[in-house]
Amino acid sequence: MPHVSIPDGLPGIRGLFTVRPETAKPLCELADVLLHQPNSLSPGDRELIATVVSARNDCLYCQTSHGAVAAEHVGGDEALVAAVKRDFESAAISPKLKALLAIAVKVQDSGKRVQPEDVARARAEGASDVEVHDTVLIAAAFCMFNRYVDGLATWAPSDPASYRARAGHIAKSGYATIPTDVGAARAVSGLPTT
Amino acid sequence: MPHVSIPDGLPGIRGLFTVRPETAKPLCELADVLLHQPNSLSPGDRELIATVVSARNDCLYCQTSHGAVAAEHVGGDEALVAAVKRDFESAAISPKLKALLAIAVKVQDSGKRVQPEDVARARAEGASDVEVHDTVLIAAAFCMFNRYVDGLATWAPSDPASYRARAGHIAKSGYATIPTDVGAARAVSGLPTT
Repeated sequence: MPHVSIPDGLPGIRGLFTVRPETAKPLCELADVLLHQPNSLSPGDRELIATVVSARNDCLYCQTSHGAVAAEHVGGDEALVAAVKRDFESAAISPKLKALLAIAVKVQDSGKRVQPEDVARARAEGASDVEVHDTVLIAAAFCMFNRYVDGLATWAPSDPASYRARAGHIAKSGYATIPTDVGAARAVSGLPTT
Repeated sequence: MPHVSIPDGLPGIRGLFTVRPETAKPLCELADVLLHQPNSLSPGDRELIATVVSARNDCLYCQTSHGAVAAEHVGGDEALVAAVKRDFESAAISPKLKALLAIAVKVQDSGKRVQPEDVARARAEGASDVEVHDTVLIAAAFCMFNRYVDGLATWAPSDPASYRARAGHIAKSGYATIPTDVGAARAVSGLPTT
């Protein structure tokens, strides 16, 4: 049971957004800039960073929801997402993304673990200042989102289909328009709004 | 040396804000809602939560800057801030704030560590749903801010006076107006803007 009162039927952070719209607004805007708005890193690469960090933090809701969005961005290849979560160094992704993920998993543990040689590896694979910056901030932000979702003991559906059902919309529309009104939030989840 | 190029003289997150104004905007807005805007928890209590979490994450910049703002809010009592950082259960603060800090330090480690009895203790001391929510999100947010600041190896001044010099302004004006333009950011730090 969640530690605070959350409207029925709204899982994970989507329920929390309706509890506190004042914090939902900057949180959605941050997620939209980091994961969805135009960037030299593809949305798929950025969602994979979010997914791997969420998996390391053992956050079921975030790793499954962002894993589903990542899969949408890579042609529905859920096996690739699973492989990246399991061992990104051996997965079929670019050397640059491997180097950025190596930074992200250090940030997941502690920012202090990132060493100049980690950044040098990413630069050698072509990573720019903004790409290194955004990788660190995506990893840091999911250390926030994961703790927020689990620290309030929100509900995470166990059925992957429910995550897939929302992933297509998020992959297309991003995070800035996620509803913080209970009725609208229930409507986009296909729930009765009364 | 920072892992990305940051304008000279701007420490911690303030330098990063000028590197990526697009992410600075929601980050400042989130900090302002959580720490500065009207709330049944005093700004001093909220800054103490941010300070304790930042200390547990060993983030020199954040624990010193928010510790200085907390001190501003509690009549300049730096000894109280130090006592809360050292052992909040024995410090001269309210039982409610002790219960909320006990939740916050669990979130710092993992959201999953927060148990119903932790929340029950806070409720027994009078904490509301929003206060429990905001405590979890402040703690989670500083797990982000700390990793962001240290993951990019930003500069943290060692002189407490430089943090005190900014704390009065932040305590009064909040976080929403922190400049993301390099010239303006240098100006508020008393640095030459050319």
